[in-house]
Amino acid sequence: MRCGMGIEARQVNELFINIDPIQAGGKLTADAMKAVIAYGDGYSVCDNCRKPNRLDYISKPPIAAFHKDLADWLNMDAVRTVPGARRGFQAVAQTYVSKGDPVLLTSLSHYTEFLAVEESGGIAREIPADEQKMITADAAAEKIEDIRRETGKVPVLAFIDHVDYQYGNMHDIRAIAKVTHQYDIPILYNGAYTVGILPVDGKTLGVDFVVGSGHKSMAAPAPSGVLAATAERAAEVFRTTSIVGDVTNRKFGIKEPEMMGCTLMGATLVGMMASFPHVKERVKHFDCELENNRRVVDALLSIGGTQLLSEYPRKHTMTRVDTTGSFDTVAETHKKRGYYLLSALEEKGITGVIPGATKVWKFNTYGTTRVQAGYLADAFTAIARENGLSVKE
Amino acid sequence: MRCGMGIEARQVNELFINIDPIQAGGKLTADAMKAVIAYGDGYSVCDNCRKPNRLDYISKPPIAAFHKDLADWLNMDAVRTVPGARRGFQAVAQTYVSKGDPVLLTSLSHYTEFLAVEESGGIAREIPADEQKMITADAAAEKIEDIRRETGKVPVLAFIDHVDYQYGNMHDIRAIAKVTHQYDIPILYNGAYTVGILPVDGKTLGVDFVVGSGHKSMAAPAPSGVLAATAERAAEVFRTTSIVGDVTNRKFGIKEPEMMGCTLMGATLVGMMASFPHVKERVKHFDCELENNRRVVDALLSIGGTQLLSEYPRKHTMTRVDTTGSFDTVAETHKKRGYYLLSALEEKGITGVIPGATKVWKFNTYGTTRVQAGYLADAFTAIARENGLSVKE
Repeated sequence: MRCGMGIEARQVNELFINIDPIQAGGKLTADAMKAVIAYGDGYSVCDNCRKPNRLDYISKPPIAAFHKDLADWLNMDAVRTVPGARRGFQAVAQTYVSKGDPVLLTSLSHYTEFLAVEESGGIAREIPADEQKMITADAAAEKIEDIRRETGKVPVLAFIDHVDYQYGNMHDIRAIAKVTHQYDIPILYNGAYTVGILPVDGKTLGVDFVVGSGHKSMAAPAPSGVLAATAERAAEVFRTTSIVGDVTNRKFGIKEPEMMGCTLMGATLVGMMASFPHVKERVKHFDCELENNRRVVDALLSIGGTQLLSEYPRKHTMTRVDTTGSFDTVAETHKKRGYYLLSALEEKGITGVIPGATKVWKFNTYGTTRVQAGYLADAFTAIARENGLSVKE
Repeated sequence: MRCGMGIEARQVNELFINIDPIQAGGKLTADAMKAVIAYGDGYSVCDNCRKPNRLDYISKPPIAAFHKDLADWLNMDAVRTVPGARRGFQAVAQTYVSKGDPVLLTSLSHYTEFLAVEESGGIAREIPADEQKMITADAAAEKIEDIRRETGKVPVLAFIDHVDYQYGNMHDIRAIAKVTHQYDIPILYNGAYTVGILPVDGKTLGVDFVVGSGHKSMAAPAPSGVLAATAERAAEVFRTTSIVGDVTNRKFGIKEPEMMGCTLMGATLVGMMASFPHVKERVKHFDCELENNRRVVDALLSIGGTQLLSEYPRKHTMTRVDTTGSFDTVAETHKKRGYYLLSALEEKGITGVIPGATKVWKFNTYGTTRVQAGYLADAFTAIARENGLSVKE
């Protein structure tokens, strides 16, 4: 089945249980699917754009109300939608970071945070994770002091991932925020794996910014995301334009330079809006998601030689395992080599593991039902048994 | 009909002939509609991401081939997709503009170009349009000399709109490029109203960058766009990352900081790809579009007191008229005031004119059939007659 010349229609989530680590939270809801068709045309949301002519003021479709609801839901003062979390990082870095400024990241930070620092001319300084792959407030304080001793400056900004992309570990960002604020360093909460997945309360966490990803965790089409700020920081990052045309003396009203004017448009925005009521509901049931994840993790750990690299008990459904001592031992002699694992999973209707990976790999059970989680658990142990690995009962 | 809580499904292009000035080129093709459903899920295009792990290298769906085709089609050396034309302006401005640098714009430049200059700390210097609202190469040369006399510097970058958003006039960017290159100023061709609408050949125009808008002119969902460059400029704007983590010594491969890493994803990208064969075909028939536009313009000009503010004969279908001497005289006494015009149009199945506008307004006939163009022409003269305005036969 095709959807254009040479483009096969994608049916991954129709045909498989998909445990891809980055795709689990971005599957569209049925309402979002309707929305992308109804609002697919380029400037679809601009039919009823009226003064002051900024997209987030439009009331039909209810974009203005959505922005307010989103800010309330995150317990932050102001929200803008952006084309992906990375564009939120970029806006904040461009506001605070000048050439040569140190910026606090962590040894588990996502590459897009590094690129935001690089584009604004900053220097990346990583807070090291401890042996348990956790970023602690003590390590943050120590790093800031190190930087100060070394450069005479404190970092101008901190990007901290609440749940990191490498291990899916949950870091104590509230405690880290207390530390950065002792040095007047604004802190950005990277919620790419949390906003839309579990409850996030920006004021309680004490952060200056909350960034979320629509296509990673809010059941929205790509590229989409959210940048929320406290009132104080909103005045800085969402400052309005002051540039003037030297011939025409034109000014550009309440457009915001860091947002490049009007924010997220069309199918991406309305898809995010259509999914939002479902997303608000689903974060309340994250305990069930963890319970489903536990079943799968426990099944994997019952296979002799398997190690969990993520923290345990799990606080997030995105999980990293090391199966060098189990599934990988089979790959050595299997005629399909390392590809046998994904192949065996796909025969059982499961996909999302990197083809050929049998050593260190990640998966995400988010969005599976209880029955699917049981099925996943059984599938892994069955494949282990079929290949002669030991499984604890 | 709803597509989510509180969101009415949009049916503008199903129920009306839509002459909105910015919406005409961004209506999805049927293939793009299929694509946004098939690739609606967040990270949908990443199923087959393999080393070197950058989105524009993915071959299934055929993203890599699309990038190559797009570069060939624009006759440029390298192409990246971006979330809207403005993100192309931003990437180029961030590369070349430092604090206090003068940047060449025009008195007809779009606000997003000003914001790109502002965000990078540059100073906007407008080439004035002449009395016919045209930007000439002579005026460009004069402006550069003025800036040099005044500041001792020449501009570091020029943004020139081939067809401007105010009048839909077509400016001689080839001649302007010759001038800017005499001063070694890189020139960005803003093709928001041309790429996807009429043939664009970057090398023949002699420009350094070509920027296009997917949602404005390439029948793609928002936000989407394209940034094309010559080989020389590609090495600058599409330079790869050089930042290093100070603890982990991590590097980030071939990710590009000005692109913020992986480029346009999911529904927006695949929508653009699905429309591309149709877009390539339609630009070949721009003469028919101009002929349709001429019928509507001539009809409007047959109404006594109407003035065309755009150049004539028209070289683009987006057109600005002044009906202060015609339709606006009716508004003074009509019970619906200025709203009567859109109301009368909508009764005839036409929409896209700003509600209440009867003085200076814009419309775009792009994409109408010959029959629809005739219908539009007749509708305007009929409304004029119904309201007692004189119409030349």
